[in-house]
Formats: sequence, C-alpha cells, structure tokens
Amino acid sequence: MDTAMLGQMLENVRATTPLVHCITNYVTVNDCANALLACGGSPIMADEEEDAVAITAICGGLTVNIGTLNKRTVATMHAAGKRAGELGHPIVLDPVGAGASPLRTETAGSLADELPVAVVRGNMSEIKAMAGAAASTRGVDANPDDAVTDGNLAASAAFARQVAEKLGCVVAITGAIDLVADKDRAVAVRNGDAVMGKITGTGCMLSCVTGAYVTANPEHPLEAAVAAIAGWGLAGEVARGRMGELDGNGSFRTYLLDAAYNLTAEQLAAGARVEEV
Amino acid sequence: MDTAMLGQMLENVRATTPLVHCITNYVTVNDCANALLACGGSPIMADEEEDAVAITAICGGLTVNIGTLNKRTVATMHAAGKRAGELGHPIVLDPVGAGASPLRTETAGSLADELPVAVVRGNMSEIKAMAGAAASTRGVDANPDDAVTDGNLAASAAFARQVAEKLGCVVAITGAIDLVADKDRAVAVRNGDAVMGKITGTGCMLSCVTGAYVTANPEHPLEAAVAAIAGWGLAGEVARGRMGELDGNGSFRTYLLDAAYNLTAEQLAAGARVEEV
Amino acid sequence: MDTAMLGQMLENVRATTPLVHCITNYVTVNDCANALLACGGSPIMADEEEDAVAITAICGGLTVNIGTLNKRTVATMHAAGKRAGELGHPIVLDPVGAGASPLRTETAGSLADELPVAVVRGNMSEIKAMAGAAASTRGVDANPDDAVTDGNLAASAAFARQVAEKLGCVVAITGAIDLVADKDRAVAVRNGDAVMGKITGTGCMLSCVTGAYVTANPEHPLEAAVAAIAGWGLAGEVARGRMGELDGNGSFRTYLLDAAYNLTAEQLAAGARVEEV
Repeated sequence: MDTAMLGQMLENVRATTPLVHCITNYVTVNDCANALLACGGSPIMADEEEDAVAITAICGGLTVNIGTLNKRTVATMHAAGKRAGELGHPIVLDPVGAGASPLRTETAGSLADELPVAVVRGNMSEIKAMAGAAASTRGVDANPDDAVTDGNLAASAAFARQVAEKLGCVVAITGAIDLVADKDRAVAVRNGDAVMGKITGTGCMLSCVTGAYVTANPEHPLEAAVAAIAGWGLAGEVARGRMGELDGNGSFRTYLLDAAYNLTAEQLAAGARVEEV
Repeated sequence: MDTAMLGQMLENVRATTPLVHCITNYVTVNDCANALLACGGSPIMADEEEDAVAITAICGGLTVNIGTLNKRTVATMHAAGKRAGELGHPIVLDPVGAGASPLRTETAGSLADELPVAVVRGNMSEIKAMAGAAASTRGVDANPDDAVTDGNLAASAAFARQVAEKLGCVVAITGAIDLVADKDRAVAVRNGDAVMGKITGTGCMLSCVTGAYVTANPEHPLEAAVAAIAGWGLAGEVARGRMGELDGNGSFRTYLLDAAYNLTAEQLAAGARVEEV
Repeated sequence: MDTAMLGQMLENVRATTPLVHCITNYVTVNDCANALLACGGSPIMADEEEDAVAITAICGGLTVNIGTLNKRTVATMHAAGKRAGELGHPIVLDPVGAGASPLRTETAGSLADELPVAVVRGNMSEIKAMAGAAASTRGVDANPDDAVTDGNLAASAAFARQVAEKLGCVVAITGAIDLVADKDRAVAVRNGDAVMGKITGTGCMLSCVTGAYVTANPEHPLEAAVAAIAGWGLAGEVARGRMGELDGNGSFRTYLLDAAYNLTAEQLAAGARVEEV
C-alpha cells in the first residue's frame, strides 16, 4: 500500500476541518472531542432525536458509538443515521460491547442493517458478535482468545473480508495487529502500543477520528480507515516513547492527544506499517 | 476600566468558594467542574428536575449550558432557573449551538425570556442567533464571518449593547476579541490564545467560571464577567507559553487548568487587556 | 493492622483484573474508568436497565454512584444491584450528595436497604445523612464541621461502627483522616493530601477502585477497603510530591492516575498509615 496516500489523507482532514457529529457514550466523549480536534476535525455531539437530526444535517459525517446506549439514544442513532444516509454523509459505527449484552448486540446489528454505514470499527470480539459467530466479549475489551496474530493472520483477514461483504461496508478490527477490510481486500496495520489498552476510550477516540478521515476522503473509505488507524497507532507509539519513570496512564492519555495533534503527513507516510494480507 | 477591581473579584471568589450548580453538557462537564475548582469555586451537577431544584436551593449560583440538551433536561433547566430566580441567585446561560438547530435556538431563547439571567456567554454566531439576526453557527463554533475584529469593533460593540438591552442582561461574546456588554457599556477583552479553540470546552468552562465570579460579585455582573473572561484568557496565555515541542491539545488542556488554578489577583490586575469601546 | 496484607490485596487486583460494572455520574466517569485501569481493574459502564442487568452478569463487581442520578438510572441501580446480589458480586455504594437533596438521601437509603451492599464509601456529611443524623452536606463536599480529627477520633470511630451495624456493611468515611469500619472494628487511614479535594471526582474514583479491591478480595471487605483507600491516598501523596511551581489541579489529576498506575504492593505495604481505633 502506498503510504504517501495515507499522509495525503491526513492533509485532507487538516485542510477541510470536517465537522463530525458524534452520538457516543458519556464515558469517553470528552476525549473523543479532543481527539477529533487533535487530528484536524471538529466535533459536535447531540443525542435528542429532534436536535440530532438537525445537527446531522449541518455536519459532514456521523460517528455512532453504542457504549452507553439507552432506548432514547438508540432511536436517535437510527434517525440521525437515516438523515446522514439521505445526505450522503459517511457513517462510522463503533459497536462497543457487542456480544457483551443482547441489547448491544441487537442494536449494533440493526444499525448496520438499516444504515448505509461506511466503516464499522471494533475489536475482534465485537466484530465476531456482529457476524453472528460465537463470541465472548470481555466487557468492552476483546477476549484474548480472539487476538489477531501472525499465526492466524490469513484466516483473520479472510474473516474480515467476509464480514465486510456481509455488512456491505469497510470493517476495521483493531487490536495488537489491526485489520481493515472490504469484501475484496484486507490490510494489516502494525502500529500502536500495548499501553493504549491501559486508558479508556482509545477505540472510541479512533472511531471518531476515523469519522473525520472518511468524511475528508469519501472516495476511499478503506484507505481512509487505514490512515486513521495507522496515524492513531503512530501517535500511541510517540506517546509511549515520551513516558518517563513516574508516568502512567494519566500522562499517556495526554501524550496520545499531543502526538495526534502534532502528527504530520510525512510522519504518517514514513511510519505507517501497513501491508495487504 | 480599573483592572485592580478585576483582581479583587478573583479574591472574592477565592474567599467565598461559591457553590455553583451547573446543568451542563456531558461532553465537557468534567473540565467544567475542574475549572470551577481551579478558579476557587465549587461545582455540583444535577439534571433531574426534582433533584436539580433542591440542589439549586443550596447553591449560590446557577450555570445552564444547552450543549447536549434533551427534553428532560430542558424542563429541568427551566425549573431550576425559576428556583434560582426566586432565591436571587445569579444565572449564567451558555447557548451552545444556538443557530445550529431549531431546538437549540428555541431553547436558548425561551430560557433567556423566562429566566432572570445575569449573563449570557456565547460566541458571536450563537449570540446572533439569539438576537434573531441571520446567523450560521458552524456546529458549536462561530462562523469565521462572525469574527469580531478591530475593523468592526465599534459596530460589534453596538450590537452587543443592543442584544444586552433586548435580553435584559449582560452579554459576553467570546472570540479572538471578546466583548462584554450591558445596555449602556461595552468592554473589549484582548486576552487569550488561539490554541484555546483546539480543545473542547473552553467556552463551557468559562461559562461555569463566570458563574463563580458573578456569584461572588453579584452587584457587578458586567465587571465580574470581564474578570472571569480576562482571567481565563490570561490562563490560556500562560498555558500556551508553557507548551514544549511535543505538546499539543492534551497538554494544553492540563496547563490551562493549572494556570487558572495558580492565577493571582495581581496577575489578573496586571495582565488584563480590557478597554471600554 | 498488617500492611503486608494490603499490598497482597493490590497484587490480587493486578493478578485477576476484576471487571467492575460502574453505574456512575457523567461528571467524573472518565476518570473513574481510568482509575480502575490504573489500579489493575477493568471498567464497564451501562445504565439502561435491560443492558445494565446483562452487563452486571458478566462482571465481577458493581459500583453504584448516585452523583447525577435520574429516575431512569435509579431504577437501573436497583435492578443491577439486585442481579449483582443474586450472583454474589460485591457492591460498593457511593452516596454522592446524600443530605444535599431529598432525592439523593432517599435513593442512597433505599439502595442501602434493599441491596446486599459490601461497602458504602462517602464523606462524613453523606454518611451522617444516611444514618439519619442531622447533616448539612455542602453540595458534594463534606461540611467542614463534620471533619474527623484527632480530637474526635474515638467518637467518630464509634459512630462509623454504629452506621456499619445499622447498614449491615463496611462503611468507609473519607476525609483528612479516613475511617473504615464494620460493626466490630474501625481503622483510621492517614494517607492522602489536601490537593485531592481540588480536583473533581477523587471520591468517585476511589469508590470504583474500591470496587476492584473488594471484587479481588471478597473474603475481606474491610481490609480491601482499607487497602484501596490507603493506596489511593498514597497515590495522592506521590502526585503532590511531583507538582512543580506551574502545576495546579490539571497536572495533579494526571499525576494521581500515574501514581495509582505505578503503585506497587511494596509501596503500599510500606506507606500505608493505618491503625485500629
């Protein structure tokens, strides 16, 4: 994969400041907003149906995250997603905790079925749950048994392509090795650092950032998702490198936003470790 | 304007630790609470009508922010605002996203109409929307066309005074140049830094901080708002000055709270760049 | 008290990564999640009844915090708590603002009555309100008149034991001197730093961390609560020691999470200042 293209996609985010409507959970929403600003986008959040549909209309893209869903906001997700679809805005879906409760699994499924989603981004357990495969999501984290490894990379890529075909969108499965696939292609991304799992919301933030990338690069959702994920992983690597002896997940969270804020197209093009698989 | 008075107003906040009830959005609420603590106030948040009315009664002031409003919380805003008014507690209104959706515009308008608001604080697009002028709020950010500049300062100040007269309260319009006006006077504040727009919630935080200042200085809402805004801008300048090469909006957010926490009356009196216009 | 046991309890958290379901307020929820991760646990948040009951079932423990309660979430707290009780999962209750509004006082009381709570953690004003004693909670902070001091330590410890007997659980009263009691014993903890009161949510975070400790050490809820509280206080001391001249509550918040993240069993065993009283 041509990584210069990934750098260009970051430039496109910075040049257009995509306004992304995020219907997301209240646990990580502040970091989501700051992550969007760090990458060059602009966030707005609304979750009352009447408001959210109007806000969707003035935005360029929509990210839906089911992390602390309730019946009122699930209805809003559907209504706002329908409006985004009518307007041709890209939709990113983050199925937080699919597989961990029936309501989450069903909501993720019905959103994917009824909305013209561009990208679904989740961990392997969540994506397995959406595919109807046996899955045992460990809360909001992937089950360790579901890890993508070099040993199962080809099979995992084939699974990702199948799910992408079934859902009719790009599927991004993030973990130690990330996989981004449409029905024909799968790309492995090997950026990131394990400390990213020691703060809450790295996945939620990435989904919102992916919303900015696909909004700024609507013709290439797979590559846009790869660029977002590789860039986010690179930011995690920079943040980890900055940690001193006394630093922990508090400082890491700050450094991650800092690194995303300072990430350049050149860094992304040079540092992205991506390969078609 | 006598800036020593602004320093005194900060001292009054620190001496009285005003308890400010904030009905605010869930995106930036944590930073709002920490900003209130940083300036010397004390936060409490409640949004269920029954609870919020009781909590309002034990507080000294109320800040209402419509950032992630829903029908339940809009009713709470009205009920708590009514109670605050009966008790003579100052109310600050932050009309986040007025002009971006009909629900937000209408809610901001009805709150301003029905409650004895002391200060409305928003960006120019939001204030234009509240004034019934043509406005095109860009999500939660001001439309760049709405910027207050040296070129349009006199006209902008006249507009601010008119809106203040119409709404019957102090109006604070924040941006690169801030304007604070009642029906008779307008003050320009030239503190702050552009990086403040690269984190979410600087406006929300400022509205809560303004709540603390007007609660501690109820006789002088215009000057209290000027003091809050100049102090917040100064904190932004200090925070920006502290940024190193690797720092971005993550560190800036931390430094901003730190600077607000360490701001002294002397610094505020010496550093406030305010002038009647 | 044998402080080596406290260190072992931290090891047990780290070794088992307890998944703790937190039904908590939206003000401090992000810091609660990061605090849980810092101490070695894993957070998940859900507040819609149907979802929360299912999520409770896959977790090891439950922390309920009434900070921004509403009628929908109060029903969820009862339903999830009932499910946790059926499954034998430890429940920690944080009665934020009990005494500050009737709804909070009643909700805290009915949760304590109806659920098999393992630990109630609050400030002295909140605990007095739950005990039905005259109390005047200052918003979400304790009334200064309610401070535990060396002068009233024996009487305060007797009160804590009485409340523990009445509520049928461990009671943890945190402040400058913390008290942890069951009906027979009371332990004073003298770790911590006053700056912890200058950021929002240190109490909420501690309640979630306590959830991890009691989940990982279910046989010894009193000692587990002491370990959580002493460890959290030690983290506060380390964080305070790290503060430079320009640092304020922004940096302190980060340093607190960092110190909790890096806390070792040896540090806890050596640094815990605990005594039976």
